Amino acid sequence: MQKRLEELFERLNDLYYTRKFSHLKTLLLEAEPADIAYFLEELEEKDKLLFFRLLPKEVASNVFVELDVDAQENLIKNFSDSELCDILNNMFLDDAVDIIEEMPSNVVKRILKSTTLENRNLINELLEYPEDSAGTIMTPEFVALKQHLTVEEAFKYIRRNGINKETIYTCYVTDAKRKLIGVVTIKDLLLANPSDLIETVMDTNLLFARTLDDRESVVNLFSKYDCLALPVIDKEGCIVGIITVDDAVDVIQEEATEDIHKMAAVTPTDKPYLKQGLLTIFLSRFPWLVLLMLSATFTSLIIGVYEEKLYLITPTLFACIPMIMGTGGNAGSQSAVTITRAIALDEVKFKDVFRVLLKEITVGIILGLGVSILCFLKLMFIDSLYNEVTPLIAFTISLALFATIVLAKIVGAALPLLAKKIKLDPAVMASPFITTIVDAVSLILYCALSLAIL
Amino acid sequence: MQKRLEELFERLNDLYYTRKFSHLKTLLLEAEPADIAYFLEELEEKDKLLFFRLLPKEVASNVFVELDVDAQENLIKNFSDSELCDILNNMFLDDAVDIIEEMPSNVVKRILKSTTLENRNLINELLEYPEDSAGTIMTPEFVALKQHLTVEEAFKYIRRNGINKETIYTCYVTDAKRKLIGVVTIKDLLLANPSDLIETVMDTNLLFARTLDDRESVVNLFSKYDCLALPVIDKEGCIVGIITVDDAVDVIQEEATEDIHKMAAVTPTDKPYLKQGLLTIFLSRFPWLVLLMLSATFTSLIIGVYEEKLYLITPTLFACIPMIMGTGGNAGSQSAVTITRAIALDEVKFKDVFRVLLKEITVGIILGLGVSILCFLKLMFIDSLYNEVTPLIAFTISLALFATIVLAKIVGAALPLLAKKIKLDPAVMASPFITTIVDAVSLILYCALSLAIL
Repeated sequence: MQKRLEELFERLNDLYYTRKFSHLKTLLLEAEPADIAYFLEELEEKDKLLFFRLLPKEVASNVFVELDVDAQENLIKNFSDSELCDILNNMFLDDAVDIIEEMPSNVVKRILKSTTLENRNLINELLEYPEDSAGTIMTPEFVALKQHLTVEEAFKYIRRNGINKETIYTCYVTDAKRKLIGVVTIKDLLLANPSDLIETVMDTNLLFARTLDDRESVVNLFSKYDCLALPVIDKEGCIVGIITVDDAVDVIQEEATEDIHKMAAVTPTDKPYLKQGLLTIFLSRFPWLVLLMLSATFTSLIIGVYEEKLYLITPTLFACIPMIMGTGGNAGSQSAVTITRAIALDEVKFKDVFRVLLKEITVGIILGLGVSILCFLKLMFIDSLYNEVTPLIAFTISLALFATIVLAKIVGAALPLLAKKIKLDPAVMASPFITTIVDAVSLILYCALSLAIL
Repeated sequence: MQKRLEELFERLNDLYYTRKFSHLKTLLLEAEPADIAYFLEELEEKDKLLFFRLLPKEVASNVFVELDVDAQENLIKNFSDSELCDILNNMFLDDAVDIIEEMPSNVVKRILKSTTLENRNLINELLEYPEDSAGTIMTPEFVALKQHLTVEEAFKYIRRNGINKETIYTCYVTDAKRKLIGVVTIKDLLLANPSDLIETVMDTNLLFARTLDDRESVVNLFSKYDCLALPVIDKEGCIVGIITVDDAVDVIQEEATEDIHKMAAVTPTDKPYLKQGLLTIFLSRFPWLVLLMLSATFTSLIIGVYEEKLYLITPTLFACIPMIMGTGGNAGSQSAVTITRAIALDEVKFKDVFRVLLKEITVGIILGLGVSILCFLKLMFIDSLYNEVTPLIAFTISLALFATIVLAKIVGAALPLLAKKIKLDPAVMASPFITTIVDAVSLILYCALSLAIL
């Protein structure tokens, strides 16, 4: 695939710079919009508008949707009013809304002025749905059929009205009040008799989302039920839009990326890494690093308190602090990350909290036993080569390690579930925060145990 | 949606235990296979086979595919040969292959014996593709059209042959040697004239995967190009199967879960969390914890070497070790995880290594400056309340912190890219390993700097 792209770019470059514009247009008609967008983004600033204007009308909007925000904003600023109008009217409304959400307010005003009154109203409705709700990823452009049509009439209707719908493969059957009463796929229609009524062909067992549902749990329905599109209904049960699988795929990728970033203490950003400016990267990381650095004040405070006493017992106790804290942190994040991902995939819910805790405590005890026995042996046979280690010291350290692991598993399993319950983000809880908590608690435990036993 | 599921389960339970089997069958015809499977898994062992046998033929295979491996294996063991045969013949071949891959060899033999000769050959071909290749997620059941058909003839063909294909919405145009020459969607066909030839309607700009391509980069094409299906071709350019978007969605979810687990030092498993046995969980975590615990031997060795000297300078130096190591680890995993995710999404390739390094070093320097200045202030005004802190001590610690952050960013950015280059898994490099390396290096740096300056 990579080679295909390089060849395409070479041909585009060639035709563009030798000004063979009619050949270029033929090629642009065939190429994938996503590839053209990528090519355009790499052009020099002054060429972008020129090149964009060469795009055949049929593909211009599709390419525009695929561009990155900066390129979109620049183009819009240089478009004439009629150009902007053309591009917007050939675009699916959910794409228009996605673009509007990223633009500064003066550009938004221009965009809204350039659309038809009907579209403007629809866009404004879409813009009002809360962030990350199903309403923000749906499109109001779907095929709605009436139940009393015959299959033949339905095909006629689809041929006439389907061309500018996001999908025609799933059609939605509605009553006079736009209430959703069934779905019918093109496959059903093709396999039915032309004279059959829609109401006899349609499937009344409905899967749907509500406008205010969380988009993450909505896209999980796509992987669970293998659907190509999902209707979205409002409080009255009326269908107001559909979510298509291509948008669901994008959301699935985005949500996974967001969770991964949050677990690594990075504020998620929309842009691909290579397009992120230095400032964006800095801002997405700085607050977290500072927060975690400051929270380490606790650990240095704790060490400060116990330092002299520990040192008087044996310096070996110091040397093992990073091992205890590190293993505790790892044990905690193993649980936290596993549970957080399970929550994201709707595999685990808050009502499972006791089942999860029981499991994690049991695993924690077995893991703790295994790891701390190995640790005891390591202390006696390896660490003793360069540090002072008596069996009692090794036992104390291993015991502290055991307690740390069990504790870390409990904290790691409980916090993401609690976060979900009180509507905080489990992913933020998952990694750095848990490490910080486990660090502090395990350190106190370690110091206290050491003083008590030795 | 949750409520819908609870109601369904209540009705199923009711009808099953009051033995109203004809009502039950009607309900089972309407319900989603995934939901029925979930219900069946929660039944008692003795009821599972009985309940499964109540499923109408049309849905039995679909439900079977959605069951977890243990339930599948148990059912197969209790099936009669003819039952097994029926279920397999109504199943898509890619699903059959997925099931076979999880079964013990005696069950596999029985399955292969129960399929038709043609299917057995196809299944054996599919089983031979290497793990994680595009060949393993494709199905050979697609609609192939000849270029000289008219649209009307094509519709007839689809009506006759489409019912047991995984998708009919994208059809593939092949020449006499099964070479792929174009694609045509049902939407194209519906909007064309019945007398048009397929070759005039089809799109010859082909997106495709090869059988041996890595499945992760193949599914990325779905999100990039918004496709519903992707043809898979062999070395000769012949189409051997297609990948449908529902399977792509599953792979996207699985790959993200795998990466997330690896980053948290957990060996990925196929099963959802609540279905994992204690042994599975233990084995997926234990080796990593032990490895990381043992690798902490380095840090305790380093501390052992420098301990006395540092303590003689000032105990404060000890108290700050967790802060230095923790911040370094966090800084490193911020970079590592961001780059690893970008690699997984094909946003960053090895050829970008210098661009990435330059970016990370620059960000590292700015972040390092910001964080270490704040750290200096914290040391002077907060830590000084309970530890001995002179300006020179604070300066030394902050300087070490700065160097640690820059270094962590370099290691964190370079290792995943290197891993990708030498075909190791970047995700395994991403988190725990980098923390371990950064821990050791930053500790040496810290101790050496302290001794040199103080």
